[in-house]
Amino acid sequence: MSKGRLLSGMQPTGLLHLGNLEGALANWVKLQDEYEAFYFVADWHALTTMLDRTELIAKYRREVATDFLAAGLDPEKCAIFVQSDVKEHAELHLLLSMSTPVGWLERVPTFKEKKEQLHLETVSYGLMGYPVLMTADILMYKADVVPVGQDQLPHLELSREIGRRFNNIYGEIFPDCKGMLTKYAAMPGLDGRKMSKSYGNAIYLCDSPEETIEKVRTMFTDPLKIRKDDPGHPGGCAVYAMMDVYGQADMHDDCEAGKIGCMQCKKRLANFLNGRLAPIRERRNELVQHPERLDEILAAGAEKARKVAKVTMEEVREAMHF
Amino acid sequence: MSKGRLLSGMQPTGLLHLGNLEGALANWVKLQDEYEAFYFVADWHALTTMLDRTELIAKYRREVATDFLAAGLDPEKCAIFVQSDVKEHAELHLLLSMSTPVGWLERVPTFKEKKEQLHLETVSYGLMGYPVLMTADILMYKADVVPVGQDQLPHLELSREIGRRFNNIYGEIFPDCKGMLTKYAAMPGLDGRKMSKSYGNAIYLCDSPEETIEKVRTMFTDPLKIRKDDPGHPGGCAVYAMMDVYGQADMHDDCEAGKIGCMQCKKRLANFLNGRLAPIRERRNELVQHPERLDEILAAGAEKARKVAKVTMEEVREAMHF
Repeated sequence: MSKGRLLSGMQPTGLLHLGNLEGALANWVKLQDEYEAFYFVADWHALTTMLDRTELIAKYRREVATDFLAAGLDPEKCAIFVQSDVKEHAELHLLLSMSTPVGWLERVPTFKEKKEQLHLETVSYGLMGYPVLMTADILMYKADVVPVGQDQLPHLELSREIGRRFNNIYGEIFPDCKGMLTKYAAMPGLDGRKMSKSYGNAIYLCDSPEETIEKVRTMFTDPLKIRKDDPGHPGGCAVYAMMDVYGQADMHDDCEAGKIGCMQCKKRLANFLNGRLAPIRERRNELVQHPERLDEILAAGAEKARKVAKVTMEEVREAMHF
Repeated sequence: MSKGRLLSGMQPTGLLHLGNLEGALANWVKLQDEYEAFYFVADWHALTTMLDRTELIAKYRREVATDFLAAGLDPEKCAIFVQSDVKEHAELHLLLSMSTPVGWLERVPTFKEKKEQLHLETVSYGLMGYPVLMTADILMYKADVVPVGQDQLPHLELSREIGRRFNNIYGEIFPDCKGMLTKYAAMPGLDGRKMSKSYGNAIYLCDSPEETIEKVRTMFTDPLKIRKDDPGHPGGCAVYAMMDVYGQADMHDDCEAGKIGCMQCKKRLANFLNGRLAPIRERRNELVQHPERLDEILAAGAEKARKVAKVTMEEVREAMHF
């Protein structure tokens, strides 16, 4: 019996951090053994928000791919590629644009939000079509399963609708893709808010052990616990929250009882994180020292992806008499 | 000194008729000697209106290309190709979609009209993006000149804006394309209204001499002129109007004076048209008898077009760090 197909991607809009690792990448690494998996760097998508900073997209394109590999994605097991290396995505995007009603896209909550936030002149046609390109990405590989975060579920529902409409017109070509919600508590950042590159509260996969220790040292803890003996409130402590995500929060009672100080907790967290990140850093450093290796892996990944994309597009064109 | 670049296309949404011939194709034939010309069958565009009739698009794709050649386009002089054979158009369309504000497209008069006519659910994202795809078609070949009809001028103005915005962000890559308005009186149809496939009042390039005679025989003339001797009113006569387009309207006074009958005029028009269409039909028949010849010409045309498209896309990708 053949394994199901799985697809997921990340935009190269910044460096990947612990939130990306534990919320998505670590899961991808597991899934590469269970599915025929396609993981891609969604660089065309990044244009929806970084249109005029494409030199940064170029930088992050490599960084994100490097992080994919460092996190444990294995090019022997799955396809790791850059979206813009597989031009078929653009063709399918164009074809799907013809059967996707504008009204469906106008109702997407994230689009409505952006349209209200930004001046209309700066909301691009491509931003409106984000779900169309996302659908092309998914349908291209006839993915059965798409691991996504909670916030992407409405987009995935729309992708299903776009796929169904295409099937209604041209015949049953695409399967109904299912979302696979990653079960993981949101990773708190250094300041206790959700870890996010835009908050500047992230620990990156490319941070060194020293940077990690330094970042953890400045983390937000209970402001009422000044001395070690003061009773602490773990509920409002970012260090505690991060330890909790990792199932390492056994200091709860000791903190409340004033038996353990914040410095101790931070040392423990920094140690834990450096342990968690050690094999990732090792792989990362090796990759950074051999940049041609990444080129080869991405070229081979694109080749693998194109092989599937070519078959899909032949089928699509035939069904459309194109 | 190198000749300027010229591009124009037609959608394969029906058979080409005298209006297309005299309003565009005849001009294209002249221009192929003056410019490095690219003429294409815009089959992706046809999806904006014939989404669920793609077997007809397939039929007309060949018919329109055949009419291009029958009208006198010479594959040795210009590139004759099918849009969907040059996938680069889809990629540039996607890239331009990112820098084109939704607001610009919402304000296009033809889009606003269609949006009011049709139910919102049936107005597609692709229909809204029609000017973006058209811009990709033009910029791909860095066309200096685009022969268009009056109704296409607002679209061309928008294409210029889209090209300028791209240049503003990524550097001066694309020239400002100029529209070249074809000077030709609108061709009247059999019923006196503008000749149009949707009115069913057209004489097609693929009509036989007998069909042409029969169509002209049923043409609308002055209803008050019943006998030859009755004084006629050329101003309200479709036959007269068509003769006038061809500079053959010297019967004006004789008609008014009742010296000439409608049957005579119709015979003269049918003869004239059959003379005009004779060389076109000859080329057409030869092409229809050797369908592999059309395949070869379109393959060679696509090759020619792709050669230019590849260079443009390399430049675009480099400017965008892609």
